[in-house]
Amino acid sequence: MLRRRSALASLLVLGGGAPSAWATNAADGSALLQRVRERALQDTRAWEIVTALTTEVGARVAGSPNDAKAVQWALAQAQALGLANVRAEPVPLRVWQRGPAQARITAPHAHPLVITALGNSVGTGSTGIEAEIAYYADFTALKADTSDKALGRIVFIDQKTERSRDGRGYGQAVVARVAGAVEAARRGAVAVAIRSIGTDRDRIAHTGAMRYDPQVRQIPALAVSTPDADLIARLAVRGVVKMHVALQAQSDVVATSANVIAELQGSDVADEIVLLGAHLDSWDVGQGALDDGAGVAIVLAAAHHIAALAVKPRRTIRVVLFANEENGFDGANAYAERYAHQTHQFVSESDFGAGRIWRLRTRLRADALPAVDELAAALAPLGIERPATGANEGSPGPDAGVLMRRHKWPAIELTQDGTNYFDVHHTDNDTLDKIDPATLPQNVAAWATSAWWAANTPQRFGPL
Amino acid sequence: MLRRRSALASLLVLGGGAPSAWATNAADGSALLQRVRERALQDTRAWEIVTALTTEVGARVAGSPNDAKAVQWALAQAQALGLANVRAEPVPLRVWQRGPAQARITAPHAHPLVITALGNSVGTGSTGIEAEIAYYADFTALKADTSDKALGRIVFIDQKTERSRDGRGYGQAVVARVAGAVEAARRGAVAVAIRSIGTDRDRIAHTGAMRYDPQVRQIPALAVSTPDADLIARLAVRGVVKMHVALQAQSDVVATSANVIAELQGSDVADEIVLLGAHLDSWDVGQGALDDGAGVAIVLAAAHHIAALAVKPRRTIRVVLFANEENGFDGANAYAERYAHQTHQFVSESDFGAGRIWRLRTRLRADALPAVDELAAALAPLGIERPATGANEGSPGPDAGVLMRRHKWPAIELTQDGTNYFDVHHTDNDTLDKIDPATLPQNVAAWATSAWWAANTPQRFGPL
Repeated sequence: MLRRRSALASLLVLGGGAPSAWATNAADGSALLQRVRERALQDTRAWEIVTALTTEVGARVAGSPNDAKAVQWALAQAQALGLANVRAEPVPLRVWQRGPAQARITAPHAHPLVITALGNSVGTGSTGIEAEIAYYADFTALKADTSDKALGRIVFIDQKTERSRDGRGYGQAVVARVAGAVEAARRGAVAVAIRSIGTDRDRIAHTGAMRYDPQVRQIPALAVSTPDADLIARLAVRGVVKMHVALQAQSDVVATSANVIAELQGSDVADEIVLLGAHLDSWDVGQGALDDGAGVAIVLAAAHHIAALAVKPRRTIRVVLFANEENGFDGANAYAERYAHQTHQFVSESDFGAGRIWRLRTRLRADALPAVDELAAALAPLGIERPATGANEGSPGPDAGVLMRRHKWPAIELTQDGTNYFDVHHTDNDTLDKIDPATLPQNVAAWATSAWWAANTPQRFGPL
Repeated sequence: MLRRRSALASLLVLGGGAPSAWATNAADGSALLQRVRERALQDTRAWEIVTALTTEVGARVAGSPNDAKAVQWALAQAQALGLANVRAEPVPLRVWQRGPAQARITAPHAHPLVITALGNSVGTGSTGIEAEIAYYADFTALKADTSDKALGRIVFIDQKTERSRDGRGYGQAVVARVAGAVEAARRGAVAVAIRSIGTDRDRIAHTGAMRYDPQVRQIPALAVSTPDADLIARLAVRGVVKMHVALQAQSDVVATSANVIAELQGSDVADEIVLLGAHLDSWDVGQGALDDGAGVAIVLAAAHHIAALAVKPRRTIRVVLFANEENGFDGANAYAERYAHQTHQFVSESDFGAGRIWRLRTRLRADALPAVDELAAALAPLGIERPATGANEGSPGPDAGVLMRRHKWPAIELTQDGTNYFDVHHTDNDTLDKIDPATLPQNVAAWATSAWWAANTPQRFGPL
């Protein structure tokens, strides 16, 4: 006992290239995993990192000057955190740029509206559009409509977003944002307005990407704040409602961004990659604190924590801060092409705010699943459960999901509590104060533990 | 027993000019008071009224077209509710008009700011002002500063507002808004910015009135949202912070508004007035739902409820919806002059949102206090307490307070729970959804009970 403790202590505090305890001694490996977790739980660095990002950069929509500033910031951070092979890998973009946007109710009673253009929306022209509203309680009602109710009108979709820990309410509602314009245009609408996809009651609208169909006329698309949606609903039951909308926007603007990459070089299987992802860009509102400054901070802090150990991982732990997650996944796709040839032990992403992690799910080759018991045991003291059903149906986040689907790379998901995430998601309200500093160390500990385990286990996880 | 019940029933359900039970039979009076309370508790009309005001009018800053619309709306509402002597009494105004307002941090890192001009602020000129920030943790720190720190700078006052049921946190903080410009200008500042006087964490700034001193230079004054104040504080500890401010505004614009008055005519002492007040105007943001649509709805619904009884009050119950409470008390002052000659049994106002009433306080002549026991007993079942200390140091609200002070008229205060009031006070977030419909009937019952009691008691309450 004494001897092993002593060996562990030297692994944790001394420098040098001692071979990993893992391959040679399972008991040492498990004890080390616990030490990684417990030490990471004491780490408050993630709060410092996200504080710096929101204070020194702020909002950083892909391709913008602030996005370029964020790339420089991330390179400097990764260097300062002791990570290796720190680099920015250029990602060419064609971006959508928001212009001024206003809307108001003009009849039966004049009201200003708090709105935001949806990402990729075309503009209205400088004089704007005024039309009657065609009210739909939700996207399903619009899809079901075979009448001419929407013809020549501004379709309003009053789609509610239910609060949920795992984000399923968002998953159910977001189709109204993404596909609302196409369905409205198919029915002859001149524009589409949606209730913000969000769980708050604030007079702040939620932006986010929408898409057109090449076969369907492109109409302007916007979201109104939830109190404004309530107002429209109240007016709609009283009779004819008219809205004026004026949006300016530019599409297909040539720009550039970069994936920022930083590594902990592996030892005997350094060519296999454990990928800890987050995305560096944000929407052009708020400070990008929860989305995804928190994720950037969590994975950087987790990697830093492992870098501070006196022992190297067997596989290479690679932090990837993806470019333009919000409106195109350009960073994920660029990464997928550049690193198609590399073996990835797992891909993953922290991109659901800063709440506590409550669940571990995986997407691994079936024969690898017994090995996960060891990780699950190491995460259990953090309050993280491995579900009885669907444990290997994990969804590793948006960018990592692109990689998983393209290359059949295995993946893990550490599910955060997203109960409050959609109160501020994609809004001006996504600011540092929405992060509880107390929840970050648990996230860092879970990621450090998972990365360390995956980097050192003899088990290979993929391909799927 | 049977006979009295029967008499009560006829008083409540039959029309006609039966003399009040009060003067002739104390037991009948007390039972009737309980019936007034219990029937009003079933009344959901206040929710309908505030829904109509926020939907059909919305924000209605004094002197604006929407304020004129609100006056017409209120006249029609009062008529429809069966009130008598419904009238608009013109109130001449000289108003402040908001223009465009922007501010941003320009160094050390560029950040847009969410701001609002404070009411009565001068503009900056079209090119705006750029200067270093002089940071003060609160108004006390500014007042204590005898250095030249503020000279040529934009003073920033990071005054926090503590959450409290009775609004004392606002009372302590609001001096930064009202007097910040004068204290900053005395120290040579070129502008003043304050942390919004509010208890929320939303990216929405709180407006409200500020004042100049004729002896001190007038400098522009604005409030930033609380997350922006946090950002400024984080930047300030890192070094020099520069801000650019551009405000446009006009002062002393000639306009007109009106007090809207509606009555329940009294019987044998009809020349004595029980005044139920609220203010009809709002700031030029939000929908004026909590401030003071709720109060308008509560006092109108309470009066309507009494009007529906089959018995008249002895004294006249007068609903007064005051003009321009928010920036000048012009309605209160006009009322004070016009009705100086009338005996007021009490003046009062509902202007603290829509939370439950938890306290009764009075400001009555000492010999009248024993009579209050009857009202306190009638309100106790509503969860309303009469405090052990300070029970006769009530503050009846802003407009009623003007009347109380000018004429020594007696007053009552029915204190609402204001715990969440300052989350949305004077902001775009003051919308109908912030009102819980379930709390309104308790308010209506308390006001109807108090008004009925005061109108019928043999006890006179004033002058003070």
